[in-house]
Amino acid sequence: MRNVAVVGIGETAFGEHWEKSLRALAVEAGIAAIRDANIEGADIEAMYIGNMSAGKFIGQEHLAALAVDQAGLVGIPSSRLEAACASGSLAFRQACLAVASGEYDIVIAAGAEKMTDLQTEDVTTTLMGAGDQEWEGWLGMTFPGLYALMARRHMYEYNTTREQMALFSVNGHKNAALNPKAQFPFEITVEDVLNSPLVADPLRLLDCSPVSDGAAAVIIASEDVAKRFENPIWLIGSGQATDNLALHDRKSLTSLRATKIAAKRAYEQAGIAPEKIDVAEVHDCFSINGLVALEDLGFCERGKSGKFVEDGNIERGAAVSINTSGGLKAKGHPVGATGISQIIEIVKQLRGECGKRQVPAEFGLTHNVGGTGATVVVNIFGKELKER
Amino acid sequence: MRNVAVVGIGETAFGEHWEKSLRALAVEAGIAAIRDANIEGADIEAMYIGNMSAGKFIGQEHLAALAVDQAGLVGIPSSRLEAACASGSLAFRQACLAVASGEYDIVIAAGAEKMTDLQTEDVTTTLMGAGDQEWEGWLGMTFPGLYALMARRHMYEYNTTREQMALFSVNGHKNAALNPKAQFPFEITVEDVLNSPLVADPLRLLDCSPVSDGAAAVIIASEDVAKRFENPIWLIGSGQATDNLALHDRKSLTSLRATKIAAKRAYEQAGIAPEKIDVAEVHDCFSINGLVALEDLGFCERGKSGKFVEDGNIERGAAVSINTSGGLKAKGHPVGATGISQIIEIVKQLRGECGKRQVPAEFGLTHNVGGTGATVVVNIFGKELKER
Repeated sequence: MRNVAVVGIGETAFGEHWEKSLRALAVEAGIAAIRDANIEGADIEAMYIGNMSAGKFIGQEHLAALAVDQAGLVGIPSSRLEAACASGSLAFRQACLAVASGEYDIVIAAGAEKMTDLQTEDVTTTLMGAGDQEWEGWLGMTFPGLYALMARRHMYEYNTTREQMALFSVNGHKNAALNPKAQFPFEITVEDVLNSPLVADPLRLLDCSPVSDGAAAVIIASEDVAKRFENPIWLIGSGQATDNLALHDRKSLTSLRATKIAAKRAYEQAGIAPEKIDVAEVHDCFSINGLVALEDLGFCERGKSGKFVEDGNIERGAAVSINTSGGLKAKGHPVGATGISQIIEIVKQLRGECGKRQVPAEFGLTHNVGGTGATVVVNIFGKELKER
Repeated sequence: MRNVAVVGIGETAFGEHWEKSLRALAVEAGIAAIRDANIEGADIEAMYIGNMSAGKFIGQEHLAALAVDQAGLVGIPSSRLEAACASGSLAFRQACLAVASGEYDIVIAAGAEKMTDLQTEDVTTTLMGAGDQEWEGWLGMTFPGLYALMARRHMYEYNTTREQMALFSVNGHKNAALNPKAQFPFEITVEDVLNSPLVADPLRLLDCSPVSDGAAAVIIASEDVAKRFENPIWLIGSGQATDNLALHDRKSLTSLRATKIAAKRAYEQAGIAPEKIDVAEVHDCFSINGLVALEDLGFCERGKSGKFVEDGNIERGAAVSINTSGGLKAKGHPVGATGISQIIEIVKQLRGECGKRQVPAEFGLTHNVGGTGATVVVNIFGKELKER
């Protein structure tokens, strides 16, 4: 199995792009990645693109062909991957496996979503396609509702407080204020969160990631090719796993089994422990999911994530710098693009290109969740190649 | 790059399954494949599933997690691939690349679609998501309309006749009559086709593949593992390619460039010429596309497919036995399942398990098209391993 590295990154700003179509966003991100890598479009041998639900958002399936067409890369193989909000990470992982197999040397992995063309209530219905439509969606359940159940149970089992959850959003916004690509580049306070409108008790508006448009792309190269680039960032560990689709079928409401399986695999492959991770982008679609991720990824003990956040451990330069991009909450969450966008932030941190939000970083991690945790992908990146 | 083989196959009957949900169909096919391979579910390390539009057909995205959940395989990585009607072949190809990379030794590649839960007019709208929604779909174009343009142009350029096109459907039905899994297991005549209702001039009802429910699955193993199985069928060549998404952007209306690119790659990898192919499943979503495929795959000269069919060259045991399963027209076309179903027919022919529709076969080919040809996958299979 060949090693692979990220040698180019590019993304659009996340937000409400009324003036841009999905195809325009995808091309903007792709061209930025190609320019960043300093290669030609003709060097790219295949495309992988993550997208959750363009069929419902804009009536467009077959996005992989559309993206190569619009990018002027017609001819090369192009594949769309989907696992709800983890779609971007699936595209990245399949792209890496295809390069590792020897089939290609340079590929592009992208993610894109255009969500704001629908009314908000239709967006909520569409997103419920990420859960079990027969046993959750059609019975009236929504994603805020499902995560509210997880939050309430975490509060019950571990005495996690509303304020501790709010602090996760506060941290994201603090970082987003330094990220020009962020949808909400401003700070908020715990009081702001606690006074924001109730969405699904105990979750309030500022616990929830927004509806966003955006696209992100990375260029992936095989070991030999990557070494010719100036600053390759190596994928040193990767895991993907599943859990029951419906929340009511799970063994636990306060832990994502798929995160634990995927993380175990990624840490083993990388040969490092959680303590070695300097910077991580975790999937805070709702603040509670950020807390749960800290536990499942081994950054703190089971049930202790509230206290861990309260003690300042996730701030920039602390025990582990969490969501320096702003995270899903503050940077934005165009669902199919999120996994790739997380990777871009980690690559920028490892390259040392994060400006005011830069932290000292040797190892970085991404954690991308589909649905309420039925799919999870964990990637670990390093500045140095790990010999296998 | 490691060699891979198909070591297990399973599928549902294709048709209108009012009594079965998508999840039930997927599990039925998967279990049949596991039994055919004579392995345990626990032996499977990852799942890849092709599906075009469950989000629109039944409100369900995140099908990859649903499928492993329902199959009792929770935990393993599971990925959904989509490229419209070529989704099944994308799942197969990514599964093969992942095994080739060394990441897994045994994986399952499946395809599933449940189309009959929607009204027919909504099915047509949903399928148009496979084309360019902005420049074709929203302007009123439908898939029968697009393929009718291709048919009319082929008749104009090459004097292809209505009767010749009809013969492609007649051949499919003749084979389907011998296939218990087929949606339409009965013979039809040229007159039946020519007297059937006009759908989009010159295409009539019996030129068009139906709306179907169904699922199909294959078990894929790495070279070392596959050799332990009784009758592995080897993937000896594979190509995937793209073309412009919108028909009006193409250089030709009478040839699919993506087929030619994908076929070239597959033939080169297999080290054989088109003349060596004994049996092929080609993508006859409309009869005209079957004719075009015969030319693009090199089975006959450009513009001569009508005559080639008329002369009996595609019948069982003739120059090349085409669509012995019945093809999309007569076996049925549950879009995401079709690519896998084509592979199953070829594997059965190479194993010699096709009963009354068996033909002498050493090499077999599958040709799966997304949209009007914006994505094409071509696979070549052999009974013997080809050393690389």
